Amino acid sequence: MSSLSTSRTFNIRTVDVRTDSVTRIGAAMHRAMAGTEFEKGPLGEDLRVKELQKMAADMFGMEAALLVPSGTMSNLIAVMVHCMERGDEMIVGDLSHMRIYEQGGSAQLAGVHSMPVTTLLDGTFDLDQLVSNIRHDYPKPFYPRSRLICLENTHNIMGGRVLPPSFLQEVRAITDRHGLAVHMDGARLMNAAVALGVSPRTILQHVDSVSVSLCKGLGAPVGSLLCGSQDFISRAIRCRKALGGGMRQAGILAAAGKLALEDMVLRLEEDHRNAKTFAKALWECDSSLFHVDMDSVETNIVCFRLCDPSLSPSEFCDHMAQIWTGEEVALQQGVRVLMLPFFGGIVRAVWHVGVNAEDTQMAIKKLQFVARQYSNNKQNNRLQ
Amino acid sequence: MSSLSTSRTFNIRTVDVRTDSVTRIGAAMHRAMAGTEFEKGPLGEDLRVKELQKMAADMFGMEAALLVPSGTMSNLIAVMVHCMERGDEMIVGDLSHMRIYEQGGSAQLAGVHSMPVTTLLDGTFDLDQLVSNIRHDYPKPFYPRSRLICLENTHNIMGGRVLPPSFLQEVRAITDRHGLAVHMDGARLMNAAVALGVSPRTILQHVDSVSVSLCKGLGAPVGSLLCGSQDFISRAIRCRKALGGGMRQAGILAAAGKLALEDMVLRLEEDHRNAKTFAKALWECDSSLFHVDMDSVETNIVCFRLCDPSLSPSEFCDHMAQIWTGEEVALQQGVRVLMLPFFGGIVRAVWHVGVNAEDTQMAIKKLQFVARQYSNNKQNNRLQ
Amino acid sequence: MSSLSTSRTFNIRTVDVRTDSVTRIGAAMHRAMAGTEFEKGPLGEDLRVKELQKMAADMFGMEAALLVPSGTMSNLIAVMVHCMERGDEMIVGDLSHMRIYEQGGSAQLAGVHSMPVTTLLDGTFDLDQLVSNIRHDYPKPFYPRSRLICLENTHNIMGGRVLPPSFLQEVRAITDRHGLAVHMDGARLMNAAVALGVSPRTILQHVDSVSVSLCKGLGAPVGSLLCGSQDFISRAIRCRKALGGGMRQAGILAAAGKLALEDMVLRLEEDHRNAKTFAKALWECDSSLFHVDMDSVETNIVCFRLCDPSLSPSEFCDHMAQIWTGEEVALQQGVRVLMLPFFGGIVRAVWHVGVNAEDTQMAIKKLQFVARQYSNNKQNNRLQ
Amino acid sequence: MSSLSTSRTFNIRTVDVRTDSVTRIGAAMHRAMAGTEFEKGPLGEDLRVKELQKMAADMFGMEAALLVPSGTMSNLIAVMVHCMERGDEMIVGDLSHMRIYEQGGSAQLAGVHSMPVTTLLDGTFDLDQLVSNIRHDYPKPFYPRSRLICLENTHNIMGGRVLPPSFLQEVRAITDRHGLAVHMDGARLMNAAVALGVSPRTILQHVDSVSVSLCKGLGAPVGSLLCGSQDFISRAIRCRKALGGGMRQAGILAAAGKLALEDMVLRLEEDHRNAKTFAKALWECDSSLFHVDMDSVETNIVCFRLCDPSLSPSEFCDHMAQIWTGEEVALQQGVRVLMLPFFGGIVRAVWHVGVNAEDTQMAIKKLQFVARQYSNNKQNNRLQ
Repeated sequence: MSSLSTSRTFNIRTVDVRTDSVTRIGAAMHRAMAGTEFEKGPLGEDLRVKELQKMAADMFGMEAALLVPSGTMSNLIAVMVHCMERGDEMIVGDLSHMRIYEQGGSAQLAGVHSMPVTTLLDGTFDLDQLVSNIRHDYPKPFYPRSRLICLENTHNIMGGRVLPPSFLQEVRAITDRHGLAVHMDGARLMNAAVALGVSPRTILQHVDSVSVSLCKGLGAPVGSLLCGSQDFISRAIRCRKALGGGMRQAGILAAAGKLALEDMVLRLEEDHRNAKTFAKALWECDSSLFHVDMDSVETNIVCFRLCDPSLSPSEFCDHMAQIWTGEEVALQQGVRVLMLPFFGGIVRAVWHVGVNAEDTQMAIKKLQFVARQYSNNKQNNRLQ
Repeated sequence: MSSLSTSRTFNIRTVDVRTDSVTRIGAAMHRAMAGTEFEKGPLGEDLRVKELQKMAADMFGMEAALLVPSGTMSNLIAVMVHCMERGDEMIVGDLSHMRIYEQGGSAQLAGVHSMPVTTLLDGTFDLDQLVSNIRHDYPKPFYPRSRLICLENTHNIMGGRVLPPSFLQEVRAITDRHGLAVHMDGARLMNAAVALGVSPRTILQHVDSVSVSLCKGLGAPVGSLLCGSQDFISRAIRCRKALGGGMRQAGILAAAGKLALEDMVLRLEEDHRNAKTFAKALWECDSSLFHVDMDSVETNIVCFRLCDPSLSPSEFCDHMAQIWTGEEVALQQGVRVLMLPFFGGIVRAVWHVGVNAEDTQMAIKKLQFVARQYSNNKQNNRLQ
Repeated sequence: MSSLSTSRTFNIRTVDVRTDSVTRIGAAMHRAMAGTEFEKGPLGEDLRVKELQKMAADMFGMEAALLVPSGTMSNLIAVMVHCMERGDEMIVGDLSHMRIYEQGGSAQLAGVHSMPVTTLLDGTFDLDQLVSNIRHDYPKPFYPRSRLICLENTHNIMGGRVLPPSFLQEVRAITDRHGLAVHMDGARLMNAAVALGVSPRTILQHVDSVSVSLCKGLGAPVGSLLCGSQDFISRAIRCRKALGGGMRQAGILAAAGKLALEDMVLRLEEDHRNAKTFAKALWECDSSLFHVDMDSVETNIVCFRLCDPSLSPSEFCDHMAQIWTGEEVALQQGVRVLMLPFFGGIVRAVWHVGVNAEDTQMAIKKLQFVARQYSNNKQNNRLQ
Repeated sequence: MSSLSTSRTFNIRTVDVRTDSVTRIGAAMHRAMAGTEFEKGPLGEDLRVKELQKMAADMFGMEAALLVPSGTMSNLIAVMVHCMERGDEMIVGDLSHMRIYEQGGSAQLAGVHSMPVTTLLDGTFDLDQLVSNIRHDYPKPFYPRSRLICLENTHNIMGGRVLPPSFLQEVRAITDRHGLAVHMDGARLMNAAVALGVSPRTILQHVDSVSVSLCKGLGAPVGSLLCGSQDFISRAIRCRKALGGGMRQAGILAAAGKLALEDMVLRLEEDHRNAKTFAKALWECDSSLFHVDMDSVETNIVCFRLCDPSLSPSEFCDHMAQIWTGEEVALQQGVRVLMLPFFGGIVRAVWHVGVNAEDTQMAIKKLQFVARQYSNNKQNNRLQ
């Protein structure tokens, strides 16, 4: 295979489905942030942060909400507030974002030990394992106190899976029985709500706190909303300050956040549709090359496995990102499709505001082209 | 004294000198943030954060810089990176922002013990006390390891005092002798540079790291720049992530930050001038009422003492914030001047982009009015 | 079944195999501690602690050793020293003592995140899972730095299993490849050495540090020895002081510790023999009632499963601890056998200095008696 | 001056007044520890630890007590239990043992920020400064929550000073008003009680918790008793376990502890008498050489200042520790007196069970000899 290392004069379009967290800020979002017509407090202060927090609390059915700079901080504060005492422990999925991608901050900064449960393919846990991970012999001094169970919805590593409402109900019943709190890492909560066709309140009735990202699918530049009871948020404000997450003039970010919650939720459906379209194309493409479980494509993420061990995810992603001579040049149009090589032979693609239906079709064409190249190549090798 | 609790139809102007950290975002700043013409990385990413960080590193004479959400986080990360090992200790002024206003995060989150030195009136320390606070008997297990000295420039609680360059030189000599690092909380570093008429590099040649606020006098909405060596910043990036200070689309904030460093530094001189003008008016006003040390007004902060113990700072601030019937009504113009009652009989006023020379004159008039009311009142009381 | 709630005049013997960590202190041990003839330092200080530490370092083939008050502290210090920097992570068996029984101190006090691997039946790990738990993408800021792998030998929860030397070799090869340290929780290291018929040095050649309990099988009243390189121990001394484990006149405890290492190791063989004798009796007894894997009884611990779900471990342990009318009265001798109900239908029995061969025979008789009662009972129930 | 570097055939006696924490264990203490006649629990366990803890609780007028390995751990646990929540802060004397000699464990391990108050010469604080160090504006997120005030009685660095009962009363009134707890580092509490001629209960009525050393003047080999309310001790048990301070067979140490509380308190009076005798000799000796404030010698510690700046504390201590030719040889008796050079030109001497009245007289003779040598020497220098 030969590829074009330098781009020619023909058009190159980039379809970036690596992640939904580096989306471009839209014009409407910029207008919202630049707006100088907003309600002011008694001393002239910008009330947009308070408004956003109130809007979020209402929308999520929680008593109060707090704007923080990132989802990592949002989750960390939740751990700090729920696990208030020395020797508190949390139960958390072994493949959750909180365990894998947040540098172990729960232990490093909050001093909270964690007891992982096996994450099942749909993002849930085995409930018996969950119960057996609770420290039933506390307060014997050997044991931490089980205090918190963390869920992730939709589940990132598992490919955007939506936690079934019945699972949430069962977890709530267990935590009620054992006096534990439930925190949901809902970075993509709105995707779950859209996929289930329910309001976020319906999902969140079973949890004590949630963190929801304003970036990702919702397209705001910065911020996560941490929501919970009034008392929870009062404590969270102190933790946010200690961590250095108190931002001075966050009104600008709040304006973007409001627009995200008001208008951008509507467009998540489109991401889900595009993701399904792409997954279907994968499924129809070449079963000796790709494996995708169509049922697992519930939201904006497609995880698929490469079936031939000789083709590694990072090699495949390189092929999708290159501009190929020949066919692509003939089409006068080069397409770079950027995907994320995952562990375990998996490739991940994520839809978002920067990738529309047309981009998705281009990505499918590229996929088919690469698959064709690969199978030709393989045949040639066999013939030699 | 009778005051107007509800505002009449005449104009009311508010001169808010409580702090420089809730300034209004100007139009130019908004335009900068909305700008969509910026350099992009190889995959379309927003390079403005990198540009801001490079600009800051150059301007401050440091190898590298990092944008973080707040000054509190900036300082906390500095402590985490310099005091890398268990049992490390820092030496810090007893009246520094880091000790008084950052919720004890150095101990709470970084596990770093601190050894305070007495803050002198000009923000410096006695050097003998500084040396005696170093743990000379480390590594005997009783003792922490002295690792870091923190300075604050300009010094907030001491009223915006500029650390003398000779002091920095002497501190550097001590730390070199004892293998300690120096971090400068330079939230208002640019005010120090402007007041001294030197470049920030000149000041920072004596320190290992600095945190500089983009808000406050420089008027950006959010952010602090942490600067240091390449290795220091590499470690700082990890700490920022763990704390949850990694912001997704910070390009917008970086655009504001660049404008702050490029254009807003020039206007700090004006704040200093206005602050001095106000201080002079205080000094000329009524020496039985106010005490201000003119030499201490070096930058944009004026701290003055109320001389009559019967008038408390918060009462005085209330008077400055009220609209008075009579004289003010006659003038068709009410002025609310918002100041900060401090501890120890002190009142603090801080100049910034939202308070110009005219506002300052209005504030002076109000001050003279309140002083007059107070002295009339006192005389009446004496006559009764 | 009817039992005697109050003890009659006949003899009652208690065979306590719940644990080896509450053994009685023998007369020789007391004599050693009371001894006043010991080498003194230049200023009259008691040199017995130094001697014990030197003896241990020699015996274990390590550069240096340190006496600490408990195995929990020994392990905690090892974590603190190996995981020196913020964001360091350790890999540890999910059923290890360090994770299950030490209150999560690694996170709570040392701020170290842990990544559990599944503990296999023989106390080892699957090596592929081990490797996949290393954070290969460090220093990307999302990830902690993998720094330490903790092993447990013999493995407590798994029933005193001895780690195979080949496993240690393989783990060492992995950690060398990835720059990790290996700590061994060797609370019962000497049992492993005796079972393998090798010197402890042979086992420890593959690890960087080890903690060995002086209590348990070795019968000293208090103390654990933490061993490692000179540099490791220098740092450990500081951690011990910070945790409050520096004991003033530890010479007395050191005298007991020396005796433990000198004389008591010889008697571990006897515990192993008694444990095997008991396990064989279990195996021969009633296979519908007990399941024991004879190969798993490698040292002084016997873990067996109750096969009938209607008989719970705690009920069975109650029966073993009661004095029964009838047969036992006829024998003029009551025997209480104290065992530990474990989770998962398992009962655990541990041999130690307080339980000799005769006691073991008594425990076997009691076991047979209880089994007989149970099977009679069951038959009666079936007949009804 | 010429000194004997190697000891001759004449007798050498060492009077070691460097500290009271490396005393020799007496014969009675050894007998107590070796005792095998002690009450046993229902399963044969050693009940001596419980007995010691009960005895201590009664003696100190507290609900409960806990034996821990060291005073450092005792104080650390007190901080951990009182400052239970994130962001709690303690107020503590700047020259207290907890700040100076415990490696900053309160911050390092407990994450507790501290706010030092100036320690006055008699070990007390200025009460206004104490009150001003309380964070009155909590729960504003800038501030930690003031939670605990730590006192030290007798005060080590200040030379064994006894806190006046009126001071304790006043501190208690302040803490009651502001909802703070009071912990007393009573490592030498019994010296304070003996000096005041009151029971320890009388002193401790004003505090919430206390740690009392069993070593030092009381002569037990290992251990500190932490005392407080039932709930406080329940939490302390968990902290002790996490820190690794749970010792297996502590009955032996408890037996020594009981003897310490029962019999050894009586002999503290003797230490105080000897210390005063020595101080008086100092005072009478040569006022150009030594300065001692007789009123400050309240217990077993004598701190005195060297008046001639040309004679440093460590040089003086060397002279006291050397054997001198001439006069000492003539006396057929060499005496080494070991003292501790302190900071600030101070030398410290501490009386304990290993130094009796005769030793004290020998130390006085040595002091007079050294003083004479020094003044001769000075005169000679002047004549030259």
